[in-house]
Amino acid sequence: MPEFLRLLPPDEALARWLAALPEPGPFLTEASPTPEALDRVLGEDIVSPEALPPFARSTVDGYALRAADTFGATPGLPAYLDLAGEIHMGQAAGLRLDSGQAALIHTGGMLPEGADAVLMLEDSQPARSGQIEALKAVASGENVLHAGEDVEPGQRVLTAGRRLRPQELGGLMALGITHVQLRTRPRVALLSTGDELIAPDESLGAGQVRDVNSYSLAALIERLGGQISRQVLLGDDRSKLDDALRLAHSEDDVILVTAGSSVSERDLTAAAIDALGKPGVLVHGIQIKPGKPTILAVAGSVPVLGLPGNPVSAFIIAGYFLPPLFQRMLGIDRRGIEPAIPARLSVNIPSVAGRQDFIPVRLTRDEAGWLAEPVYGRSNLIFTLVRADGLIRIPASATGLEAGSPVMVNLL
Amino acid sequence: MPEFLRLLPPDEALARWLAALPEPGPFLTEASPTPEALDRVLGEDIVSPEALPPFARSTVDGYALRAADTFGATPGLPAYLDLAGEIHMGQAAGLRLDSGQAALIHTGGMLPEGADAVLMLEDSQPARSGQIEALKAVASGENVLHAGEDVEPGQRVLTAGRRLRPQELGGLMALGITHVQLRTRPRVALLSTGDELIAPDESLGAGQVRDVNSYSLAALIERLGGQISRQVLLGDDRSKLDDALRLAHSEDDVILVTAGSSVSERDLTAAAIDALGKPGVLVHGIQIKPGKPTILAVAGSVPVLGLPGNPVSAFIIAGYFLPPLFQRMLGIDRRGIEPAIPARLSVNIPSVAGRQDFIPVRLTRDEAGWLAEPVYGRSNLIFTLVRADGLIRIPASATGLEAGSPVMVNLL
Repeated sequence: MPEFLRLLPPDEALARWLAALPEPGPFLTEASPTPEALDRVLGEDIVSPEALPPFARSTVDGYALRAADTFGATPGLPAYLDLAGEIHMGQAAGLRLDSGQAALIHTGGMLPEGADAVLMLEDSQPARSGQIEALKAVASGENVLHAGEDVEPGQRVLTAGRRLRPQELGGLMALGITHVQLRTRPRVALLSTGDELIAPDESLGAGQVRDVNSYSLAALIERLGGQISRQVLLGDDRSKLDDALRLAHSEDDVILVTAGSSVSERDLTAAAIDALGKPGVLVHGIQIKPGKPTILAVAGSVPVLGLPGNPVSAFIIAGYFLPPLFQRMLGIDRRGIEPAIPARLSVNIPSVAGRQDFIPVRLTRDEAGWLAEPVYGRSNLIFTLVRADGLIRIPASATGLEAGSPVMVNLL
Repeated sequence: MPEFLRLLPPDEALARWLAALPEPGPFLTEASPTPEALDRVLGEDIVSPEALPPFARSTVDGYALRAADTFGATPGLPAYLDLAGEIHMGQAAGLRLDSGQAALIHTGGMLPEGADAVLMLEDSQPARSGQIEALKAVASGENVLHAGEDVEPGQRVLTAGRRLRPQELGGLMALGITHVQLRTRPRVALLSTGDELIAPDESLGAGQVRDVNSYSLAALIERLGGQISRQVLLGDDRSKLDDALRLAHSEDDVILVTAGSSVSERDLTAAAIDALGKPGVLVHGIQIKPGKPTILAVAGSVPVLGLPGNPVSAFIIAGYFLPPLFQRMLGIDRRGIEPAIPARLSVNIPSVAGRQDFIPVRLTRDEAGWLAEPVYGRSNLIFTLVRADGLIRIPASATGLEAGSPVMVNLL
């Protein structure tokens, strides 16, 4: 499995990878209290057990009445209504309005039986004791929120696959749905090869560097809705790598391998991944910078991503390939909405046609809007990404971008 | 404290509120393992204890050598070098190169003493036993990452106030910084008034509705970096409200009160907030839709936000006023970068000049890009927000926007 038999464009590589995976589902689910489900993916359709609001409510402070009784009312020729009482908040209306009657009601109060509209307080005035004047005609239904106007009983309000935002949690609680089924988070194994790597809490010996990728990638995966099942440093020992891959393959849903930096380390990694199961390595080498030595594989039903060892490449490549993978594995129904910042490029950036380039940029603001300034630094330098606000893509069809060009910045 | 003595524009209201708060800091901090600090705010400056990389490293597979020895080398007139050995990954170079010598080195390997450059493998070829041919001249420093090129020892790599992203966690771990001080999350009290409110797990009686705001707001606050210290339903009892406000004032950092829906409930809330401490209520009524009855107050050093009772208004208003508050209270150094989606409006939207309107929209895509379609629904309907992808703002200076107008959609 030598490197770079044929370099694929990144979108084609992604499509080939996803196409080799089994159809997603059935999905495993787990129960959760609704308030703890922020950013998780709903695992069931939600059908409302009740109406929201549960009863007709006034949307203003005023008088509940029969609209027909105000027909033709004006300040010069008001309609007179008998005051039948007051509707207290949080209680049954407790009275029935007949023709010619009105009841004081507050915003959110329950419309009494017999009433079909609410006259706003400012369109009324007190008349002689026990009566009010309606200075304006109201239509049937005016200033009333009908029972079920937000949600009808039996209505499907959310479908499985929705990633839950604060407003979904509020909506569920509004319906009394205090527990929900969530899709379980895919288990991700992070295997790092390379004799030079040590854990961050160890003392550096000569020639050694600390593992970075396990931590930046773990945080990225957490954001995407996955959970890290294991983080292992493996050196460059093929049999250790084989063992770790087999264990991860039997227990986890996704395997990430960051290969050592050298060609021999990468070849060893590629061969071990390919041996894990069919169809094996599908893509080895992508027309992308940074990240050319990326490996995309599937072993049985488990996707395997082989990342370059250097932390910037690994992070950018994971940021490109993992979001669509997790969207598919979690069955997320989002429609590709990626927040981005429109900006102008501060300088000319050359690039090679036929290769998609990702450039870390820093955003600064002037009167005309955001300016995207490349953060120069070799792709080996993790603090390049710390200094960056986002990434811009230079498409494969371009041979660079000119200063002042409009670009979309995907926040990092 | 009657409502709406003078309606303020939202930006002016915000500025007045923030200006009445004491200068932020000194900030409380707490220790955390670095890998658990995602999205938290750093509470200390980070000075690197060491160089990154810790030694000069090769960026390619090839031969470490003295650049001067390759001077003038070409494929037709190669330079001959004696092979002095191989540099193994993760180990001290273990040899010293003299003039005329080269050592096999892998990407990421430690440059041996005496060497100042690396010749790429593809620019070399084997000569007679124990020698290689350099087919190309290399400059001093070529294909070498110098010790400290990413970070110098003693360099300040992060400053307090940085919100930690995956790449910051990776960078910290790369330097062996496995624990950090984080700013403590502001404690937020959520008080809800209104006799009509019950907790979501209770059975609905006539005239009652379930509390929504405590849950949608709690999730929003969690995202902003705060923590909920208490969630209390209070009815419309002034003395209960006073007691709850006093307790929250003595123990928490921020108080949110969602007022009942009626004018009398809102007046009671405003009076109780104003009595809590000086300077008291600063703003009562804002030129904004939805959310006109918003209250902004400060009691001593504690900011108090009085939100309208209806869930959509409460959520939109909290989304407008809380992010700058938390940014200030946590001393976050971000520079106002708000991700948004550029879109075109699908229909004409009328609005009233002098009032800033927030319109929930749903995004759909056509060939020309994103189309923002208003989600119509009364502001009382929480599922309006469930159906929405984001919000657009119609500025106070406009009297509506025409179909096709470019808009920025802030994702909800």
